[in-house]
Amino acid sequence: MATMNAFYAQSGGVTAVINASAAGVIETARAHPGRIGKVFAGRNGIIGALTEDLIDTSEEPAEAIALLRSTPGGAFGSCRYKLKSIDANRREYERLIEVFRAHAIGYFFYNGGGDSADTCFKVSQLSQAMGYPLQAIHVPKTVDNDLPITDCCPGFGSVAKYVAVSALEASLDVRSMARTSTKVFVLEVMGRHAGWIAAAGGLIEDEGIPVVVLFPEIPFDEQAFLARVDALVKQHGFCTVVVSEGAQYADGRFLAEQGARDAFGHAQLGGAAPVIAGLVREHLKYKFHWAVADYLQRAARHIASATDAKQAYELGVAAVEMALAGHNAVMPTIDRTSDTPYAYRIGMAPLANVANVEKFMPRDFITPDGFGITPACKRYLRPLIQGEDYPQYRNGLPVFATLKNVAVARKLPEFTL
Amino acid sequence: MATMNAFYAQSGGVTAVINASAAGVIETARAHPGRIGKVFAGRNGIIGALTEDLIDTSEEPAEAIALLRSTPGGAFGSCRYKLKSIDANRREYERLIEVFRAHAIGYFFYNGGGDSADTCFKVSQLSQAMGYPLQAIHVPKTVDNDLPITDCCPGFGSVAKYVAVSALEASLDVRSMARTSTKVFVLEVMGRHAGWIAAAGGLIEDEGIPVVVLFPEIPFDEQAFLARVDALVKQHGFCTVVVSEGAQYADGRFLAEQGARDAFGHAQLGGAAPVIAGLVREHLKYKFHWAVADYLQRAARHIASATDAKQAYELGVAAVEMALAGHNAVMPTIDRTSDTPYAYRIGMAPLANVANVEKFMPRDFITPDGFGITPACKRYLRPLIQGEDYPQYRNGLPVFATLKNVAVARKLPEFTL
Repeated sequence: MATMNAFYAQSGGVTAVINASAAGVIETARAHPGRIGKVFAGRNGIIGALTEDLIDTSEEPAEAIALLRSTPGGAFGSCRYKLKSIDANRREYERLIEVFRAHAIGYFFYNGGGDSADTCFKVSQLSQAMGYPLQAIHVPKTVDNDLPITDCCPGFGSVAKYVAVSALEASLDVRSMARTSTKVFVLEVMGRHAGWIAAAGGLIEDEGIPVVVLFPEIPFDEQAFLARVDALVKQHGFCTVVVSEGAQYADGRFLAEQGARDAFGHAQLGGAAPVIAGLVREHLKYKFHWAVADYLQRAARHIASATDAKQAYELGVAAVEMALAGHNAVMPTIDRTSDTPYAYRIGMAPLANVANVEKFMPRDFITPDGFGITPACKRYLRPLIQGEDYPQYRNGLPVFATLKNVAVARKLPEFTL
Repeated sequence: MATMNAFYAQSGGVTAVINASAAGVIETARAHPGRIGKVFAGRNGIIGALTEDLIDTSEEPAEAIALLRSTPGGAFGSCRYKLKSIDANRREYERLIEVFRAHAIGYFFYNGGGDSADTCFKVSQLSQAMGYPLQAIHVPKTVDNDLPITDCCPGFGSVAKYVAVSALEASLDVRSMARTSTKVFVLEVMGRHAGWIAAAGGLIEDEGIPVVVLFPEIPFDEQAFLARVDALVKQHGFCTVVVSEGAQYADGRFLAEQGARDAFGHAQLGGAAPVIAGLVREHLKYKFHWAVADYLQRAARHIASATDAKQAYELGVAAVEMALAGHNAVMPTIDRTSDTPYAYRIGMAPLANVANVEKFMPRDFITPDGFGITPACKRYLRPLIQGEDYPQYRNGLPVFATLKNVAVARKLPEFTL
């Protein structure tokens, strides 16, 4: 078998550990020089492939690649750029194959969420239709934790840990001030459609904190919510609310809708926390504070879950191993085999079963009243936030990798997006 | 000299390390059983003294007190309750002395910011006027870093570290997405009048991040701000804005004014970030995201500065030592003797010089254009965020102290606040 190069790209919103997957892919590819030539990365994700803007990762020393394991963000750049269907824009898919052919790329590693799994699957299909041999492997990544089949998604465990730790710390703050000051603290977290991230806030209940969680999956019932907050404040003196950015009324209106939409057509949200705080002020008259964690949560490499960072790396490794074993149009998965002690093995899912399927919180992970998480949910979440995988620090700040990102010489005519 | 008991109270907004000062006070008092009897803590701060709601800290095992060193929030409860002037409310001051007399309290340790230093000073004055021998020592604490004389205030270094680390992480996230997505990230941080916390965001400039800082000390110039952001985005592809909650227009209006006021009469703020983001959207049309850190920043014990945690403890120790040495109406201070290598000694300041003096950012710590920090400011800030003092973790979450907080039997009639 001829030695072919590999292409790796990061797609969609980045995470605290997506670069750990990149390290897994690159280091494993480097360990098989007879099978895989160079790893080219797409600058700014799939846009780099379309515009033939490739990064030669072989220019990076081993130490820089190793440092990716503890560097948040996307080291090669990511993008929100959704390829249309093959029928609607065959030109883009054919361009991808042209670029891959020009650079002798036989392996396509795409590191992203649900939309990207779909793209990866289509690229695989088209390469077969066009008679260009390409192995397309999807490396899962999403803080939203909404990919099917895999037990969890790299990036989620670290956000979950950030949310649980931050909500706990802020709750201790509020508890100590509640006598004369803030009684209700509202923390807004990510999660457009699925409430996995908000659910992590429910873990602080077992640390003695009265907490109300608002999930996108549960239509927001203002009266029930206010009654619950009021009861908790009357009982405990204070209460913490963890609200998903995707929390919505029964008619589908988001609590906070800013009007803007991203490239995938998703509404760009932000601002559910002040809406909730306003309700508390208006109807309950309790003093409140609110925080919106936004990017802080998904970038928080400083408090990454060791379990998550390890799995992100392992799935990068597994993707390359699957390619070397001849697989195509698949995604490595985390297959949990035990909650306590936590155990899992790496599985493999066909992309046909992954693309365009969103995994929501099961109803039995949410308490009957809709404001908390059940013991089953806690059993699910706890292993995912286990362990601290601290970055190195220098002069008080974490040491993060900044790569050289040397461009590969272009061989093709320009391409307009 | 008779063995007298001590009173300790936490006042105002709590921090990630105020409990470390409590540990310093209690452990040092316990080490001098012949001089200091029990340490009674005020439940919910000075309100506990007024209402004779005292906590007997001698009921807490040594391990619990030691764990306070890594526990955020106020372990005995704090409050926002400002005593009026002695003339306006002599009744409250006299009640304090009555309670101290009833419980044989000869030492008054008050752990707070500027307003509390003023209260501590007045209590000291009144005790002398009333012929009740009381040594009043103020233990400095404020994330705002605005106390005079001391080089820095416990609580500030940890917030500064949180802000610098979080802003850096989020900036790496934005940098990797900027090609097709968010180009301007806005982080709102605390600091009503002084821009010390916002200044910490300026440290990420040396990590290669284009950053604009908005200080309360510099009147907000919308045109100049938008021009600066636009130039940075055009040059770097993205830009991070760190805005103080206290940022204001030239006429003194805050960028975000919620209308509510706290017990000290301060406006309760929050929401400068969405205002800034709205300006960027309206005038520059760049895609934006914003975060409001709120309590997360001052409670973030998980990323506390080791320097800060150490100093918080040391000042608690020093306060007791000063009391034992016979001092009264004083505050232990951090006296910096060298930037590099960082060195300091513990000093002592008379409360007469501390009360009601706010320390703002010196103008020469802010760049001439008003949007960044100078090398002198960086030399000042860097030592304060040095070192990581991680809490212990169990099951993925930090192990924080929850005290028994056993009440001392009351001896006096009720008192109405």
